[in-house]
Amino acid sequence: MSLEFTLEGRFPVGEARAGSLRTPHGVALTPLFMPVGTQATVKSLGPDDVASLGATFILANTYHLYLRPGAELVAEMGGLHRFMAWPRPILTDSGGFQVFSLGHMRQVGADGVRFRSHVDGSEHYFTPERATAVQELLGADVAMAFDECTPYPCSEAYAREALGRTHRWAERCLAAHTRVDQALFGIVQGSTYPALRHESARFLSGLGFAGYAIGGLSVGEPKGQMYELLAETVLLLPAAKPRYLMGVGSPEDIVEGVAHGVDMFDCVLPTRVARNGGLYTWHGRINVRNAAHKHANSPVEGDCDCYTCRTFSLAYLHHLFRCEELLAYRLATIHNLRFLQRLTARIRAAILEGSFSHFRAEFLAGYRSASEEVRAEQRAKWSKRVVGVE
Amino acid sequence: MSLEFTLEGRFPVGEARAGSLRTPHGVALTPLFMPVGTQATVKSLGPDDVASLGATFILANTYHLYLRPGAELVAEMGGLHRFMAWPRPILTDSGGFQVFSLGHMRQVGADGVRFRSHVDGSEHYFTPERATAVQELLGADVAMAFDECTPYPCSEAYAREALGRTHRWAERCLAAHTRVDQALFGIVQGSTYPALRHESARFLSGLGFAGYAIGGLSVGEPKGQMYELLAETVLLLPAAKPRYLMGVGSPEDIVEGVAHGVDMFDCVLPTRVARNGGLYTWHGRINVRNAAHKHANSPVEGDCDCYTCRTFSLAYLHHLFRCEELLAYRLATIHNLRFLQRLTARIRAAILEGSFSHFRAEFLAGYRSASEEVRAEQRAKWSKRVVGVE
Repeated sequence: MSLEFTLEGRFPVGEARAGSLRTPHGVALTPLFMPVGTQATVKSLGPDDVASLGATFILANTYHLYLRPGAELVAEMGGLHRFMAWPRPILTDSGGFQVFSLGHMRQVGADGVRFRSHVDGSEHYFTPERATAVQELLGADVAMAFDECTPYPCSEAYAREALGRTHRWAERCLAAHTRVDQALFGIVQGSTYPALRHESARFLSGLGFAGYAIGGLSVGEPKGQMYELLAETVLLLPAAKPRYLMGVGSPEDIVEGVAHGVDMFDCVLPTRVARNGGLYTWHGRINVRNAAHKHANSPVEGDCDCYTCRTFSLAYLHHLFRCEELLAYRLATIHNLRFLQRLTARIRAAILEGSFSHFRAEFLAGYRSASEEVRAEQRAKWSKRVVGVE
Repeated sequence: MSLEFTLEGRFPVGEARAGSLRTPHGVALTPLFMPVGTQATVKSLGPDDVASLGATFILANTYHLYLRPGAELVAEMGGLHRFMAWPRPILTDSGGFQVFSLGHMRQVGADGVRFRSHVDGSEHYFTPERATAVQELLGADVAMAFDECTPYPCSEAYAREALGRTHRWAERCLAAHTRVDQALFGIVQGSTYPALRHESARFLSGLGFAGYAIGGLSVGEPKGQMYELLAETVLLLPAAKPRYLMGVGSPEDIVEGVAHGVDMFDCVLPTRVARNGGLYTWHGRINVRNAAHKHANSPVEGDCDCYTCRTFSLAYLHHLFRCEELLAYRLATIHNLRFLQRLTARIRAAILEGSFSHFRAEFLAGYRSASEEVRAEQRAKWSKRVVGVE
């Protein structure tokens, strides 16, 4: 068995649960946030930094690694763990999301997707078999089935057609998958249509994957809708298997995701926000570039145990960001990822102690979320910046 | 006494010597290479990284820190050591070099220099007294006298006139300097004119500085000429005081500088070269971006004990540089700075063991230097790049 999921506790009300995932590269406690190491590196951090945060699982992107340096090269170097010097668990996505969001001139057929590289325009073809083989070469602990991630908004007709492909591809991925030291997860799709989500959850559950991801959410739809779709989907997934909400999220989304029964999360947001000077605190996000922090001779958060907070003042971080010094990105990333480790550890403790409802209410009352408008503006601004774009 | 220099050994032939510098923030062994932390950070590294390299002394730039975040702010934050979390010795330059190389619209008068900030165009005025006061606010272990650094080439008439100012300013810096926990070094100038260099070394030696720097070299003159001027200057400086060759240099220049009697060096080259993919080895510099390294499943140097070499293959570094991942800059910088620490440690051991001539010959025979032409091309290319320009 390449992956063992043990449920350690459930909060009596609602769906929140705590567990552990045993993989060939160690055990990870859930709920779990996986930092994103797109190109075999968590942007601006070394594996020493990532380990010091207490992170146990990271995500790497198949699409990016397939293009650069190439999956065969990674295999030749002893696999992804050895290549990036990360001895703990790794999950690779299937490339589906990036093929559909970054690839140019894509042509979707029954058999797979033809696309052009965003790096050099070269032409490539991904089938379920190829995506599975590429992930086997990379050698992560968890691989994902190749799926079609539909955009938001999406017509019901197209969502239905894409879901049909996703389901046939899921069967083909399972059939093609051979590595016994690697688990394969299926991905529920269905856009914003509850009936399609139901159908997808039921169909994939029947195939017997090692775990189940909920894909195609957090792609622009309103948050309320995301939570509703999540609630509808999760209940139809097998309780004994880990559930992974892809591409989520912000601190408040993680708390809400757990409340809806999710065990695993990943998102570029915490690291991308960090590189833009946005730092998490229990009261919400602050922007370190703000002039108000110029003379702040105290850490970002007094009770934070991360290297950044233990070592530097907010004034120093402000200075580094104003001067665009490279160290700024590392220090901010360390803080935000450590914040999420502390958050998921607190969530887990609250579930096991039976105080999750209280924790959730207290956290959400204290944490000021960035509004949808601010988020949209930031996305637009970030897309124009050049520093370590993901 | 704010600085104690102890000569521990001299190589019997020539001028090479080994010693130790005791400062309020610890002891540094010489010969010594000081990594440059221009804006209160060694570009891409945290102080944890810098300490792990074995570096004992770093340099910070008064001009940059005066403009951002401001010397008063640094003082308010407890001084430079505390602000940047570097508990070991620091040297600040006087700002002279940057005022003359980066400042716009500068007007030099008998009393000081008026210049515009390269950041926001604001107007500033530096006198010897102001440069000294700013450095006292920063609070480094060693401060430098405010000097006029002449460009290369420079007419003898202008070099003589500038030297007169540098000497009067040196006297005024000494008179203005009050911090007893900070040493003040004088700076020998005189452009490429041996007679002026002699005059400067003699004049400044008479003033009784805690140490002596040789400035205005390595600014574009041929290497042979630099070494000749160095030889002429060093012999006229007091043997009991540390000698510091400013802005030098490359591995081969450090070996040659030591052979000429220099104890201390600093240079942005090793860190800048690193950020452009140039990595030092005992055989010369390699460029990690080179396609030849794509499949290199071995460290940059097999015998190197730096974090980068202990942890990653050259192929992984190649991948990070090709993808412009932020981690690339940190890993390359760690390697190059550790290389210089290992180099100066070997030089020191060879001096103390009486084998320096042999070491020098062997090192220079094995180390392929970048040619002057290649250097000039690189300078031109780098000046167009945006990543962490110094």
